[in-house]
Amino acid sequence: MSEIKFRRAQAPDLPAMVALLADDALGAGREDPSTPLVPSYLDAFRAIDADPNQLLAVAVAVEAGQVVGTLQLSFIPGISRKGAWRGQIEGVRVARQWRSRGVGKQMIEWAVAECRSRNCSFVQLTTDKSRQKAHAFYEAFGFTASHLGYKMGL
Amino acid sequence: MSEIKFRRAQAPDLPAMVALLADDALGAGREDPSTPLVPSYLDAFRAIDADPNQLLAVAVAVEAGQVVGTLQLSFIPGISRKGAWRGQIEGVRVARQWRSRGVGKQMIEWAVAECRSRNCSFVQLTTDKSRQKAHAFYEAFGFTASHLGYKMGL
Repeated sequence: MSEIKFRRAQAPDLPAMVALLADDALGAGREDPSTPLVPSYLDAFRAIDADPNQLLAVAVAVEAGQVVGTLQLSFIPGISRKGAWRGQIEGVRVARQWRSRGVGKQMIEWAVAECRSRNCSFVQLTTDKSRQKAHAFYEAFGFTASHLGYKMGL
Repeated sequence: MSEIKFRRAQAPDLPAMVALLADDALGAGREDPSTPLVPSYLDAFRAIDADPNQLLAVAVAVEAGQVVGTLQLSFIPGISRKGAWRGQIEGVRVARQWRSRGVGKQMIEWAVAECRSRNCSFVQLTTDKSRQKAHAFYEAFGFTASHLGYKMGL
């Protein structure tokens, strides 16, 4: 299997990241991968990059020199559970042609290690109820679907 | 109904907030409300208070001059959904003797208004699958249980 490395995302990665988010059953209707990107993507990137409790990451296939995955980690301090920090994973995507090759597993292992290194007591994420393959993937990792995830548009 | 006001939590509110978190079916086994508080609570408070994207709040009953509820808001920038900010609600608690009096409804209305004022495109939260009354409460508000919420201890 090809070597994958992880690093903090940089502004030039943004078109590749948006393309990954858009090439998805749910993302197709929510994103706009046309270039130049709509300015709100760059605004969001700057806000994430400026926040020491956010880590937007890319997975890079070393040999191909190509972004093949992305995810965002949020490190959230809280009073609950005796003042536990939680690591939260959002926006996990693997490029279509790189799926089923272990990239996602490496990404989540990397993300969990980052959460440990930041002294998080637990890791949390939500996935859309329709993403049944994702459910099996996270359960195999040891995640428990203990919660319901509610959203409301504003 | 008694007048309720909302404000950013201050360090002296911490024992009352921890008592609220502990007086709960799930919190009872997870918190330590004994005073002086274990230092991890104060460490967490300082981390939250120093982070401009975190807002730990208390609900105060004006006449009684008493903390009757707490919740935490996290404002999270993200690339997904064209660079949307999300507001995330955690750790919602109402004092036992103040429940079923509309305090929770006012708290969530206040929280949603705060998310709007910070330009969030949506609000999200998770609740333990066992909290069936909470599910009905959030659904009545317009939240949709579109996601599964996974957690893994580290």
